[in-house]
Amino acid sequence: MSSLLKSRVLNKTFQDKIVQDVRQLIPYFKNGDYVGWSGFTGVGYPKMLPNALADYVEENKLQGQLRFKLFVGASGGADTECRWANLNMIERRSPHQVGKPIAKGINENRIQFFDKHLSMFPQDLLYGYYTRNKSKNSLDFAMIEASEITEDGGIVPGSSVGASPEILSMADKVIIEVNTAIPSFKGLHDIPVVDNPPHRKPFEVTKVDDRIGKTAMYVDPSKVIAVVEANYMDKTGPNSPEDAVSQRIAQHLVDFLHHETKHGRLPDNLHPLQSGIGNIANAIIGGLRDSPFKDLEVWTEVLQDAFLPLLENGKVRFATATSTRLSPEGFKNFYANFDHYKKSILLRPQVISNSPEIIRRLGCIAMNTPVEVDIYAHANSTNVLGSRMLNGLGGSADFLRNAKLSIMHTPSIRPTKTDPSGITCIVPMATHVDQTEHDLDVIVTEQGFADLRGLSPKERAYEIINKCAHPDYKPMLLDYLDLSTKYCLRRGAAHEPHMLHKAFKMHNNLVDNGTMKIDSW
Amino acid sequence: MSSLLKSRVLNKTFQDKIVQDVRQLIPYFKNGDYVGWSGFTGVGYPKMLPNALADYVEENKLQGQLRFKLFVGASGGADTECRWANLNMIERRSPHQVGKPIAKGINENRIQFFDKHLSMFPQDLLYGYYTRNKSKNSLDFAMIEASEITEDGGIVPGSSVGASPEILSMADKVIIEVNTAIPSFKGLHDIPVVDNPPHRKPFEVTKVDDRIGKTAMYVDPSKVIAVVEANYMDKTGPNSPEDAVSQRIAQHLVDFLHHETKHGRLPDNLHPLQSGIGNIANAIIGGLRDSPFKDLEVWTEVLQDAFLPLLENGKVRFATATSTRLSPEGFKNFYANFDHYKKSILLRPQVISNSPEIIRRLGCIAMNTPVEVDIYAHANSTNVLGSRMLNGLGGSADFLRNAKLSIMHTPSIRPTKTDPSGITCIVPMATHVDQTEHDLDVIVTEQGFADLRGLSPKERAYEIINKCAHPDYKPMLLDYLDLSTKYCLRRGAAHEPHMLHKAFKMHNNLVDNGTMKIDSW
Repeated sequence: MSSLLKSRVLNKTFQDKIVQDVRQLIPYFKNGDYVGWSGFTGVGYPKMLPNALADYVEENKLQGQLRFKLFVGASGGADTECRWANLNMIERRSPHQVGKPIAKGINENRIQFFDKHLSMFPQDLLYGYYTRNKSKNSLDFAMIEASEITEDGGIVPGSSVGASPEILSMADKVIIEVNTAIPSFKGLHDIPVVDNPPHRKPFEVTKVDDRIGKTAMYVDPSKVIAVVEANYMDKTGPNSPEDAVSQRIAQHLVDFLHHETKHGRLPDNLHPLQSGIGNIANAIIGGLRDSPFKDLEVWTEVLQDAFLPLLENGKVRFATATSTRLSPEGFKNFYANFDHYKKSILLRPQVISNSPEIIRRLGCIAMNTPVEVDIYAHANSTNVLGSRMLNGLGGSADFLRNAKLSIMHTPSIRPTKTDPSGITCIVPMATHVDQTEHDLDVIVTEQGFADLRGLSPKERAYEIINKCAHPDYKPMLLDYLDLSTKYCLRRGAAHEPHMLHKAFKMHNNLVDNGTMKIDSW
Repeated sequence: MSSLLKSRVLNKTFQDKIVQDVRQLIPYFKNGDYVGWSGFTGVGYPKMLPNALADYVEENKLQGQLRFKLFVGASGGADTECRWANLNMIERRSPHQVGKPIAKGINENRIQFFDKHLSMFPQDLLYGYYTRNKSKNSLDFAMIEASEITEDGGIVPGSSVGASPEILSMADKVIIEVNTAIPSFKGLHDIPVVDNPPHRKPFEVTKVDDRIGKTAMYVDPSKVIAVVEANYMDKTGPNSPEDAVSQRIAQHLVDFLHHETKHGRLPDNLHPLQSGIGNIANAIIGGLRDSPFKDLEVWTEVLQDAFLPLLENGKVRFATATSTRLSPEGFKNFYANFDHYKKSILLRPQVISNSPEIIRRLGCIAMNTPVEVDIYAHANSTNVLGSRMLNGLGGSADFLRNAKLSIMHTPSIRPTKTDPSGITCIVPMATHVDQTEHDLDVIVTEQGFADLRGLSPKERAYEIINKCAHPDYKPMLLDYLDLSTKYCLRRGAAHEPHMLHKAFKMHNNLVDNGTMKIDSW
């Protein structure tokens, strides 16, 4: 046992379970097993055993013969998960994934995937909803990354908590990977015991920094078949840089927030913020950095690089999430100033970070990017052209349904191979609906913001088209609205006017001609 | 003052505000005013002043010249609201309505309507989201039905609470209608003070019969401009009778619940039940009556007749909602045995009855009827053919997103003028999405039940078509699924296969030819 590992596994029972060569665990696994991983947004995932299993499949040419049903709070490690997908080791997968080979497997019908609200997934897992075709309500294996095992047997996660508590409790056999390439995260987590309904108690969180749990997870040690040392950091990619479009979006969004404080509907420190991942989210956090708002609070599912400077200079008072998904550069900075960040960050299980109860109670401001949003404010978060899965729903709907302000932001257009504005993100009818018209308050593009609160569908449509659509598409969309209204008025059905025979004409034109621009309706 | 009224208005300040002739209030009102009514699912609504205003418009031929922005927790009285709609007195309306003239006004673009989750509506109203184009964040008037005004000035609602607490607090001028044609409901309500985020506290309800509030609502008496006596009971229609189809649906649903108890996923008294209104809901309650389940609990938004015998014989231990919407016969029985029912019923504000926080904590079983549901389990609850508004979303999404079991039940077919099975309620793609695939666990028709938990979209599609679709449509739907899968596989986009150019072909055929049966794709 390395002295570093010894300093991280303080419990005698767990020390005795340390396995030097992870390969000796391979015989435990068989085709069709139900496997749970720690991990959320590509951090805090198990590394050694997944790679050892992949090596084994690769070396023995067992592609397609050792396949698993894989459950991860949200996305596992891009490196491990993509390897498994490339080696055809994933039979089923939920509820969220990142990585081209996985999306490819899903869209080519090799991987059966479903996505579920991240707040609901762990609960449904515990209920046995996902193991109902199995003789026993359990996962065969849990592979959980830890940054320390405490003297009393507490498993301290690393950079994410996700669904690890539930996966641990559901597993017949548990393998803990103690990662010595990262510091111990002890004290950074808040992990309550969450009973299943109908015995659940209120989550007594009324402020972003309220603690309601312990700093580690606990599991029956007799289920733990091995403790393994992991020796490399989370492999993440670089940050998506801001660009002119995302900066204009951020500016409109900050303008809107100012407008709200001016009218007394928000205090000067706003409300707890939730933001997604990507260049728009980065630009928004950047926009807040340069704004007069202060003492900001963050209640979100994932912390990314952009938050670090705001935490450092006190602009953000406190931030809580279920994972810290940082770039390699970001992690370097994070670990270098770990003691400082520890004072203003808490990581919680996703059943807490994404809890509708808490999001609604705190009145969060939710900000997410859709694939497309339609003129009546239904948004597609998951499936391109209604069918091609990207990453999954994530926690977008947990936040957007329950927030005080539900905001979606997107560039108004995207390029195709042949047309720099070939795709409009404002469409007549969303080809897939993840967020309904009943959920969204504000749409923002680089063109402006549409404030939809209290508007009827037709009023919303004019607001969205006029404020948010790209000039190349404005006339087309206004035509659709006017023609649909006339068409529907003829049969007294014009609450939310559509021409069902033409609703996807622009999308079909994209498939056929590489652009959503059409000559006429 | 009638002696009956005197026995119901016990507070001196409010006694002094009694107005004998409601017509003297008419001059207060002007075109464009923001008006809030009590009422929920057509009960507990103000009667005298709305009718007096309607008389005034009718007598003076002021149709279209005295129009109001009308906010009601859910639907107001069918009699008063339909009169207002017929007299073109409604300019704007939200969040839910019942009555042909109102739907007609909405669908003919005379009434600007939007529907919002019923749990969220009162909060957004308080935020000022619906009055943001007004110089002051307030409603001009609240018209609230009460069954008693207590000595300390508490306003005891009648058969519904709905959004009355919020409407009262938002109003500049308040008119209380004390209804002496119904008994005092004192003691039947539980009305907590609910602070807006970010200062909101947990709703400390962990059992259906937990009380967390007072038995009356309180308002600054200086805002009350009149107390009026109301002299007739809620005008409701008869119950929708069960029929063979709804009974078969109920049987499948009860079978499914048995299946769950057998597998240990539900206890013998199930979990708190939510059910909608209508003949299927009635049949389900009937099915539970004849089942071995006992000590049932109900956490729902509206209690209807079918629950009364179950409450009477103890099959249902306790029921809580925000309204008791009974038939005239049902109300007669209810009032005749009022003291008995009072022991096992609580009525709460809709922000509590529909609270995601509590619904999720208790693990409710939610059961609702859609307009249509598609093969991937997206459901349309509101707009026929995507455009024609029926009643609105109601609380369906509050419950279906947060329940332990989210169930939608529908006949598999409905008749058209020319084809007795001209409409299939299982469709390739929903023409409007209110409940997403991420929300629904089980679909039930008279053909059987589809258990969707943990299934990928394509697996769900086979399950729904095979178990729930009508035989007349099964081949057509299977063809769509197979053709779409091939079509999408060709471009590596087959997670949720669709042919966007054909997705609504069956709906279009309905518009053109009066049936959804098509010869080929």
